[in-house]
Amino acid sequence: MSSAAVAGVDLGGTKIEAAVFDDDHQVLGSARHPTPVMGGPPDVAAAIVIAVNEACGEAGCESGDLTGIGVGSPGVVDSGSGTVSGARNLPDWEGEFALGPELAEKLGTQIAVGNDVAVATDAEFELGAGKPYHSILGVFWGTGVGGGIVLDDHPWHGRGAAGEIGHMVVKIDGRQCQCGRRGCLEAYAGRGAMEARARKRHAEGEHTELFKIMEKRGRPRLTSAVWAKALEAQDKLAAELIDEAVSALGAGIASAVNLLDVEAVIIGGGLGVRFGEPMARRIEEAMAPHVFNSAHPPEVHLAALGDLGGALGAALLARRSVAART
Amino acid sequence: MSSAAVAGVDLGGTKIEAAVFDDDHQVLGSARHPTPVMGGPPDVAAAIVIAVNEACGEAGCESGDLTGIGVGSPGVVDSGSGTVSGARNLPDWEGEFALGPELAEKLGTQIAVGNDVAVATDAEFELGAGKPYHSILGVFWGTGVGGGIVLDDHPWHGRGAAGEIGHMVVKIDGRQCQCGRRGCLEAYAGRGAMEARARKRHAEGEHTELFKIMEKRGRPRLTSAVWAKALEAQDKLAAELIDEAVSALGAGIASAVNLLDVEAVIIGGGLGVRFGEPMARRIEEAMAPHVFNSAHPPEVHLAALGDLGGALGAALLARRSVAART
Repeated sequence: MSSAAVAGVDLGGTKIEAAVFDDDHQVLGSARHPTPVMGGPPDVAAAIVIAVNEACGEAGCESGDLTGIGVGSPGVVDSGSGTVSGARNLPDWEGEFALGPELAEKLGTQIAVGNDVAVATDAEFELGAGKPYHSILGVFWGTGVGGGIVLDDHPWHGRGAAGEIGHMVVKIDGRQCQCGRRGCLEAYAGRGAMEARARKRHAEGEHTELFKIMEKRGRPRLTSAVWAKALEAQDKLAAELIDEAVSALGAGIASAVNLLDVEAVIIGGGLGVRFGEPMARRIEEAMAPHVFNSAHPPEVHLAALGDLGGALGAALLARRSVAART
Repeated sequence: MSSAAVAGVDLGGTKIEAAVFDDDHQVLGSARHPTPVMGGPPDVAAAIVIAVNEACGEAGCESGDLTGIGVGSPGVVDSGSGTVSGARNLPDWEGEFALGPELAEKLGTQIAVGNDVAVATDAEFELGAGKPYHSILGVFWGTGVGGGIVLDDHPWHGRGAAGEIGHMVVKIDGRQCQCGRRGCLEAYAGRGAMEARARKRHAEGEHTELFKIMEKRGRPRLTSAVWAKALEAQDKLAAELIDEAVSALGAGIASAVNLLDVEAVIIGGGLGVRFGEPMARRIEEAMAPHVFNSAHPPEVHLAALGDLGGALGAALLARRSVAART
């Protein structure tokens, strides 16, 4: 094992992805666990510890041997103290929890915590589809719709809450969003909102294969794979809800592009990665009627690092954090 | 006259504002002329020459004595060559015109050309309501709705077309915008769009004082002053169209804030300046339901430099351009 190995953890609403990387960013070991749906922050931290130890086992090392571990987390992250608050997609995590210190104690190495979307955007910028550019917008289409911004080779975080492309308004007086507001992009395109809408229409008697596919796969939720399978089966409701999501993504992403005029848009996230290249093209087409600088639209690419981008971005954060301290 | 005097020109769709400033940014002389509605770019350039010479006369100098002249222009500006193209609000100015060289020849000093909204934002950032902040969004509410962005103390222009907040989509499948797209903020809030809508509803027989006030004032268009007077007179149609504009501004500005998380929003432009502080508060209220980081909304301020902000920003550009060359 390289002496410079680090681990990265992508803490998501449905799964925890941990991976150990050598200094060439190659995967030495990885593990994936479902995110606990019960309990609270300490239970989530315990599940992260298990996932990291498992990835270390595959890499042939102990967590304490790692140069550092990075965690990409939803919610509001205080990177100085390693605390995370308001992580609405995680169980009972409205308040503040000192995730960094807790993991440092249990795993015996330095922990760096960053925002999940920000680290995933950083990974695409440094090592993935964003490499050729100086300014990108990362769009992570999954349970919610997250955004990451790199301008002039530097990430832009605002006062810590930038990138909320999912809560840009695409329809005044529009649909209720799970955040409580109205007309947000996420209310049309978030997998959570799409599932809520599918359940409602199914309960009202509308035919769909979505829930049969879900049950057949033994899933409690409409995962990205379930949506993909339903589209393949030409399920009418699934197709309609995806059409609506793509139309909203086109308007929302184009709005962001009209404001920022970035060189490229990188589409990632669970749904983005699952649907792949043809969907990236559909999103690009949906953006076109709204892009103001139509002579110079941005390039639109699929995220190149796939499912592992979040963990890789977290590992990059760990490396940078260790370098800054030494 | 100070040896470091510069002039700034704010080239707008309705008026040309020229002013001579000393090195403390104090006005030594100014002039305002209507923008020619007929002819083409050379006629506009000739009107700029007249306005600058008049401002110089008041300042007691010749244009050739000035250290430099800055021009804030609509359209796509190539600051290197001083050319302006696609200035849709100016007469017959779809193509490219070498405004900088033309003015340099006629006025006998160095000319720097920049985007009108960018220079006005810069003026507010350096000398106006944006002074206390490191990141601001300038929103210029006039014939159209323009946006200027300063992040981490630096203007962000993207690839030259950033800041098009007026063409962020606030309503998918919404109203036709004068740019040809649908659902843009400007289709609801631009003074041009508001006038088109008022004319249509007036022609359909709806009562309004708007056009009576316009005629009484001898104006060919619904100027900001006409709208302000109609609101004062509690004109129902005017109030309704302004309500709609404020609602769209609230959604659009909040969307931009959710993406960028800037410290402050500065409201300027013809309508913004005319309606003043109470309208800035109304816009802030209209933003509130859409701001995602509701615990830390941005400060919302009225532009502090008023009508002269554009000319002052252009003068700052001239100063910076001269400093860079010497």
